[in-house]
Amino acid sequence: MEYKITVMKNAFYAQSGGVTSVINCSAYGLISKFQKDFSTANIYASKNGIVGLLENQLYDLSKTTKPIENLLEMPGGAFGSCRYKLPDLNDEKFYKDLFERLDKLFIGYFFYNGGNDSADTCLKVAKAAEKFGYDLKAIAVPKTIDNDLAVTDNCPGFGSVAKYVAISAKEASMDIKSMCKTSTKVFVLEVMGRHAGWIAAAGELANNEEETFVHKILLPEVRFDEEKFLAGVEDDVNKYGYSVIVASEGLKNMHGELYAASAEKDSFGHSQLGGLAPKIASLVTNNLGFKNHWSVADYLQRSARHISSLTDIEQAIAVGKAAVKLAAEGQSGVMPVIKRISNNPYEWEISVGDLKDIANEEKTVPSNYITEDGFRITSAGQEYLRPLIVGESFPKFSDGIPIYENLDLHLREI
Amino acid sequence: MEYKITVMKNAFYAQSGGVTSVINCSAYGLISKFQKDFSTANIYASKNGIVGLLENQLYDLSKTTKPIENLLEMPGGAFGSCRYKLPDLNDEKFYKDLFERLDKLFIGYFFYNGGNDSADTCLKVAKAAEKFGYDLKAIAVPKTIDNDLAVTDNCPGFGSVAKYVAISAKEASMDIKSMCKTSTKVFVLEVMGRHAGWIAAAGELANNEEETFVHKILLPEVRFDEEKFLAGVEDDVNKYGYSVIVASEGLKNMHGELYAASAEKDSFGHSQLGGLAPKIASLVTNNLGFKNHWSVADYLQRSARHISSLTDIEQAIAVGKAAVKLAAEGQSGVMPVIKRISNNPYEWEISVGDLKDIANEEKTVPSNYITEDGFRITSAGQEYLRPLIVGESFPKFSDGIPIYENLDLHLREI
Repeated sequence: MEYKITVMKNAFYAQSGGVTSVINCSAYGLISKFQKDFSTANIYASKNGIVGLLENQLYDLSKTTKPIENLLEMPGGAFGSCRYKLPDLNDEKFYKDLFERLDKLFIGYFFYNGGNDSADTCLKVAKAAEKFGYDLKAIAVPKTIDNDLAVTDNCPGFGSVAKYVAISAKEASMDIKSMCKTSTKVFVLEVMGRHAGWIAAAGELANNEEETFVHKILLPEVRFDEEKFLAGVEDDVNKYGYSVIVASEGLKNMHGELYAASAEKDSFGHSQLGGLAPKIASLVTNNLGFKNHWSVADYLQRSARHISSLTDIEQAIAVGKAAVKLAAEGQSGVMPVIKRISNNPYEWEISVGDLKDIANEEKTVPSNYITEDGFRITSAGQEYLRPLIVGESFPKFSDGIPIYENLDLHLREI
Repeated sequence: MEYKITVMKNAFYAQSGGVTSVINCSAYGLISKFQKDFSTANIYASKNGIVGLLENQLYDLSKTTKPIENLLEMPGGAFGSCRYKLPDLNDEKFYKDLFERLDKLFIGYFFYNGGNDSADTCLKVAKAAEKFGYDLKAIAVPKTIDNDLAVTDNCPGFGSVAKYVAISAKEASMDIKSMCKTSTKVFVLEVMGRHAGWIAAAGELANNEEETFVHKILLPEVRFDEEKFLAGVEDDVNKYGYSVIVASEGLKNMHGELYAASAEKDSFGHSQLGGLAPKIASLVTNNLGFKNHWSVADYLQRSARHISSLTDIEQAIAVGKAAVKLAAEGQSGVMPVIKRISNNPYEWEISVGDLKDIANEEKTVPSNYITEDGFRITSAGQEYLRPLIVGESFPKFSDGIPIYENLDLHLREI
């Protein structure tokens, strides 16, 4: 008689790139499903993204005693994230070392939770595993506030930042409306979005049929025509008494160059942005004389778990769980994606995308979502955006602020 | 037989100065109580503060059909606010015209909802009424996010912005903590506060006994010592891996001048602030080399009704109601104030303050609330601040964002 024994392999999970208010919801979905479906295996979470693997800093999640549900309410990256570019596949030494590290821990599943750059990293790992003959299923889990990943209808992380921007713009607009008779007439809210204007586009969701709260949206997809913009702001002030502008940090001038860029660059060579809002605000005041105020939301927008979208949370959990399913099926070099079935009622399901169609691709706001004048979002764009911000899931509060309790994390002893 | 007929006089209500996320809660308390207690009289709400009275733009609230409870969930000023400085009492023509306007509407009660400048306006009206022999009870209703009004223990509007700052700082801090190994190490959140650092001080409430989320607080009360600050930030990065700084826009340099001021001034001659965060962030990066990010909360902080403090809402309603009680008692030149009875459990009651002790006075953060190094808030300060942010009162949402429905407003026909 012959016995066939299948030993379940362990898993590696890392968070990568800029975090979101719901990336830990994906971690929850993934870890809880792995622990259930691969009950005899272990899952290690890497401290500070892939860096943890390279530095032997892995959290052994079997030692965690606090409820894994804590992850559902915690912004930031529970295990730490990183910006780190892997070398290309010719660097045999690097990858052999990487697979030795994984092999020592009997790791057969590599889950990488991030955006475009991270999809590229995950694809490299999948290819390298094939090239160097290491048995590894490498699955990317989508995460990015920028909503710029190809193949997937939308990205977990975006719905919550979109909700934050729509709410903040509406609230600030009501404030300015109260005061515009004798005070501030123009308000500029700068939001994230380097190449894709999805986040700024969400400002349109502040508006409804009865009232316009956001009057101008400045997208990186539309080259910034100062004169046309100033004429438009003047019209807003004449018509509404004031003008609220939601501007993407990645706004380009008429030559296609960044309208406001600093000299600093990140580890991927991207320019560090920020400072667009004061520039736009000054442009208005210098030319039209209106008193301005401006705000730069920066990290506040992507960490605001207190106002995360319930739809976003549900999708973040779903892609985490789906990644485990894909791994169990033996797939590699893929990513679970969100497929929209219908707008109204909003229905969606999880499908699968190939990382080579996703890595380093950027999905920008399509032209049919942008009004002809370039300053607003069409009804087609609104129909796309609206369902992503629907629903609330307030965290637990104590003493006036959210608790946001992390898991207890224990590094694997070496 | 003799009949004594008392005819109830009408009331005037105006919102003044920068609005808050709960000023309409005071309007709710005041209007609903006036309509109940002075059931045969009418109350007029001025469009855009005192300007509405001067321009014959008054809302007749007897014609409003939507539920007055709408005011409880609406940020901004429901009737519009203004920044407008009344002339001094020698301007007989101005005040005689003012009282003629009030007399035509049989107005005997003047309610003015605002901060320091507004207390001054209300006091002027009270004095002018006495000087020119017009029978008017002028009552100020406290409102300011700055928490800088004298006599009252705290100001309606402040608790909510304090809550916003504590939550936002905690959320952003968790984001930065996730990434600090390979990315941003220093984050600066600029908040309002021209002369008083109460709002920045609320950043301390992000911290708890287990963890420090906010590492430095920069107050206008403490002259900014760049070297000492930079040394402190370097310590934070060594100890925690990163540093989160909450900075008051009104920060002063070692000579007592504004550390970051623009040339623009408002109608009271105050400099318009903003732009401190990028200056502090650059200071850090230029000297210590750490990658920075920064955010300017600006109007977002004072309009964020979605996260208003329940304590703040209750107090805002209470001062509105108390103003009507003071009017009924025949008082003038006064303001209902909040008196703290105990910290733990937090208990408070409404008392009365004299406007001459309040107008143009500014209450700054006392030295025993500031740690010796000048960069943090002591436990005494925390005990003062904490109860003001406790409790949530989420607004009603529809399609992912708060509804924030105003009353239907009908201008009095002239």
